[in-house]
Amino acid sequence: MNELTILIQCSDDVGLVTKITQVLAKHSLNIVSMNEYVDTFNKRFFTRIACTGNDLKAASFKVEMLQKLPKEASIRIIEKQLKRIAVLVTKEYHCLGDILVRNQFETLGAKVACVIGNYEYLKELTHQFGIPYFHISHLEKDKQTFENEIQQIIDPLNVDFIVLAKFMRILSPEFVATYVQKIINIHHSFLPAFIGANPYKQAFERGVKIIGATAHFVTNNLDEGPIITQHTASVDHTYGVKEMIRQGRETEKAVLLEALRLVFEDRVFISGNKTIVFK
Amino acid sequence: MNELTILIQCSDDVGLVTKITQVLAKHSLNIVSMNEYVDTFNKRFFTRIACTGNDLKAASFKVEMLQKLPKEASIRIIEKQLKRIAVLVTKEYHCLGDILVRNQFETLGAKVACVIGNYEYLKELTHQFGIPYFHISHLEKDKQTFENEIQQIIDPLNVDFIVLAKFMRILSPEFVATYVQKIINIHHSFLPAFIGANPYKQAFERGVKIIGATAHFVTNNLDEGPIITQHTASVDHTYGVKEMIRQGRETEKAVLLEALRLVFEDRVFISGNKTIVFK
Amino acid sequence: MNELTILIQCSDDVGLVTKITQVLAKHSLNIVSMNEYVDTFNKRFFTRIACTGNDLKAASFKVEMLQKLPKEASIRIIEKQLKRIAVLVTKEYHCLGDILVRNQFETLGAKVACVIGNYEYLKELTHQFGIPYFHISHLEKDKQTFENEIQQIIDPLNVDFIVLAKFMRILSPEFVATYVQKIINIHHSFLPAFIGANPYKQAFERGVKIIGATAHFVTNNLDEGPIITQHTASVDHTYGVKEMIRQGRETEKAVLLEALRLVFEDRVFISGNKTIVFK
Amino acid sequence: MNELTILIQCSDDVGLVTKITQVLAKHSLNIVSMNEYVDTFNKRFFTRIACTGNDLKAASFKVEMLQKLPKEASIRIIEKQLKRIAVLVTKEYHCLGDILVRNQFETLGAKVACVIGNYEYLKELTHQFGIPYFHISHLEKDKQTFENEIQQIIDPLNVDFIVLAKFMRILSPEFVATYVQKIINIHHSFLPAFIGANPYKQAFERGVKIIGATAHFVTNNLDEGPIITQHTASVDHTYGVKEMIRQGRETEKAVLLEALRLVFEDRVFISGNKTIVFK
Repeated sequence: MNELTILIQCSDDVGLVTKITQVLAKHSLNIVSMNEYVDTFNKRFFTRIACTGNDLKAASFKVEMLQKLPKEASIRIIEKQLKRIAVLVTKEYHCLGDILVRNQFETLGAKVACVIGNYEYLKELTHQFGIPYFHISHLEKDKQTFENEIQQIIDPLNVDFIVLAKFMRILSPEFVATYVQKIINIHHSFLPAFIGANPYKQAFERGVKIIGATAHFVTNNLDEGPIITQHTASVDHTYGVKEMIRQGRETEKAVLLEALRLVFEDRVFISGNKTIVFK
Repeated sequence: MNELTILIQCSDDVGLVTKITQVLAKHSLNIVSMNEYVDTFNKRFFTRIACTGNDLKAASFKVEMLQKLPKEASIRIIEKQLKRIAVLVTKEYHCLGDILVRNQFETLGAKVACVIGNYEYLKELTHQFGIPYFHISHLEKDKQTFENEIQQIIDPLNVDFIVLAKFMRILSPEFVATYVQKIINIHHSFLPAFIGANPYKQAFERGVKIIGATAHFVTNNLDEGPIITQHTASVDHTYGVKEMIRQGRETEKAVLLEALRLVFEDRVFISGNKTIVFK
Repeated sequence: MNELTILIQCSDDVGLVTKITQVLAKHSLNIVSMNEYVDTFNKRFFTRIACTGNDLKAASFKVEMLQKLPKEASIRIIEKQLKRIAVLVTKEYHCLGDILVRNQFETLGAKVACVIGNYEYLKELTHQFGIPYFHISHLEKDKQTFENEIQQIIDPLNVDFIVLAKFMRILSPEFVATYVQKIINIHHSFLPAFIGANPYKQAFERGVKIIGATAHFVTNNLDEGPIITQHTASVDHTYGVKEMIRQGRETEKAVLLEALRLVFEDRVFISGNKTIVFK
Repeated sequence: MNELTILIQCSDDVGLVTKITQVLAKHSLNIVSMNEYVDTFNKRFFTRIACTGNDLKAASFKVEMLQKLPKEASIRIIEKQLKRIAVLVTKEYHCLGDILVRNQFETLGAKVACVIGNYEYLKELTHQFGIPYFHISHLEKDKQTFENEIQQIIDPLNVDFIVLAKFMRILSPEFVATYVQKIINIHHSFLPAFIGANPYKQAFERGVKIIGATAHFVTNNLDEGPIITQHTASVDHTYGVKEMIRQGRETEKAVLLEALRLVFEDRVFISGNKTIVFK
């Protein structure tokens, strides 16, 4: 028995669920779980169906289903296999460390194809896990050259996602446009609060009682991409910037890894600047 | 346009969703939202469908749907109208107060038909809101008499649910059997921790760092009914029993009111000793 | 035995705790609890001391203590008695309802002297609790007149705090300056995110996965006063603006009431634009 | 300038803070932060003082302070240096992985002297970090022999704490008595709920809506030692045992690492079967 995950989004219409499930039934696919959501504001329909069956020929029923759905329908049929990712880092180890440990014990839901860092700080850690580390410095070169060097590493590796695990360089619109809906970032604040640099310093100066972190897809609008998940943590007046950063790291790590799990399990739709997440 | 909520549970089978949605489509019912869950362990299927349509004749399509589903299928078709409830209390005001305020502003999702207390403490509060209060003392009478008096008030009022809003008497199996899946309790602990009396004293003595509260349906096994929702709150060594009770009240109130909303919106299935909650 | 709470803040210095406790010992005051915090960034010292003693003559040891502390030291000696408050509201009932219920059962930590509303919506609710309600419309008059009318009600009542329980008018700098560190507001967002109007609409449009609420002291910088406490709650793609508002109300109510408790128990210092909260 | 942390607990008495701070002032020690708590139920006093000074001669002022405090007073004067720990594991990698990563980047607050496992599963991971791993099987030997072998490794290493990072063997009272207040365990449930084996299976069968994890000191009463910290996480009907375990691992890891930080920063007092934690 094989397993498939089917993701469909299209404009909403009467009878969509019936049409979809009829096609599945005809092909003797058994629905294991089904999530469905209608965005009534934008009149869009989303469904995630996990199913099992013998001799799954994705291609054949995809055509059949497309014929029954509204013209602009998007269907993704995903066979169960590990996603492949590249991880981009700068100096901070906490997110990368967690990714590498899970990767080794095969609980990440993806395979780390490589780590790319704009410094050498995390080379040793990466090598301890037997993963290739590429040091691409951003110094003494323009952004385009820097990003070209990154692309030359990533592209042959055939990755599904690029994970910015505390990568502190802003990517150009051109780079982002090359990997649409494929770049996932962890932002060290509860967006949209404290957009930009030094969010923990901003949080300290404002005297907030809660800090947060946000995992999101990267778009050309910095810090404005579709949010996948957010967590918060309580702080108090005894927290200086240093303590906020310490607490923030725990939150960042937890949020990023939860977001990665959701994405790698194909539970996240992007719709405009938002996500639909079937947990 | 009328609104219906349809709740179905039955043994799992191939094509259930198709069969169900076909019947809906035939009757020109438009699905507004649909939740579906298969308990693969017990091989049971649950769905909650909110739909709209003209001239809904529940009776007709219920028969039709039953014919297509496994024999033991349970179908509930619920027209949109306020639930009616009786609230049972003892001395503590916090849950009742919140219920009465929401009832008055029509955000409870139900209409409070009456409040019954085994003391007179909460009579004045109830009367301030123009709601009937019945003082049924448990003193100097046996439990059966006490409960008969309660039943004689409740039964003519035709209530959908009985809410135990810090009602501190244990109901007899006979009483519970009369109102199956209709009695909702707030238990002042994070069940199954601290079952029984004085949970905050138990929590204090154990030195826990988190306390909780649990809203659940009442069954004959005291504190063992299906859990609807639970919340927790942090405490520390500075909390004595009194402070735990104070914090606990906040948690109890929030949990009970969330559970009531979920139940009154027909989002909760009971399956064995568990609930399926479609949030 | 009487109870006193002593709040001291001054520039930090060596031996402050010793000096303070010596004065207390000399006057046979027994320390029940003591919180102390040094803001090392601004070199300021804060302490909250709860103590008991016979025949407390606050005046005498206040002078003695001032002589031993840095010149700019601020000392507040607070005898245990209920604070008095005025509550300002507009249309939403949820915070006011909770305040009135607690006020009646004497668990608010303060006595509600009156409720002032710029509409009549909440008059009936307030009267049900036997509390005076003043309807001061903001319509067809300038802000100064409107605020003068409010002041004329508040001032004779000798209140300690003015609680803005979803009061949707912006107060003038003149009004705020009249009640420095005495006005507490609940803001319906996780400040500094979504400053300004319609924060839940903003949150919906941004697609956040967590919303929040913030209780803060009011200063002339709108939404920028010292934060007392914040809470957050998870939301997801199924939440429209309406559901965010519904969830937000739960959060607002919980946050405001927690902040009020902390303030009424004299646990909150204001220092610049931040608070020190001794929980 | 050197840094000292001073931990004092004794029976409560009038003027303790004054006496203590006078001794510190006499030795020109500057208080950086001071936490103080009186357990009024048991009439015990606890304080944690972080201070700085030149030429700290701990021995001299410890004697002086003891003379001024109640006879049974316990004073610990701790110079700032990394704690040393041994980590005991069985098969699960998630807590150990996090400990090893932090250890390498010197953010653990302690130095891992060795890892001991009753299987070989985690040997490779440990060796990747250059840390000694000792495989001590519990098979085909009695518990005393097994524990003797562990002790022979631990004792020469002069460790401050033994961390049970998902070590699934129950330690004998003799072993525990050898390392009083030195063994820290992560229990995979929200104690006291689900004591014993398979807590996630118990949680699944009970249908709880929240699961948790508990870090505690180990005493002879299994699962009954003083609790240091607890976290909880929401689950729902879609969580089978496997998903609860997956979520539980996130919680276990976060709780254990928080507890370790608190212990390694000397913020935790044990008092009877409870802890006082100065965060």
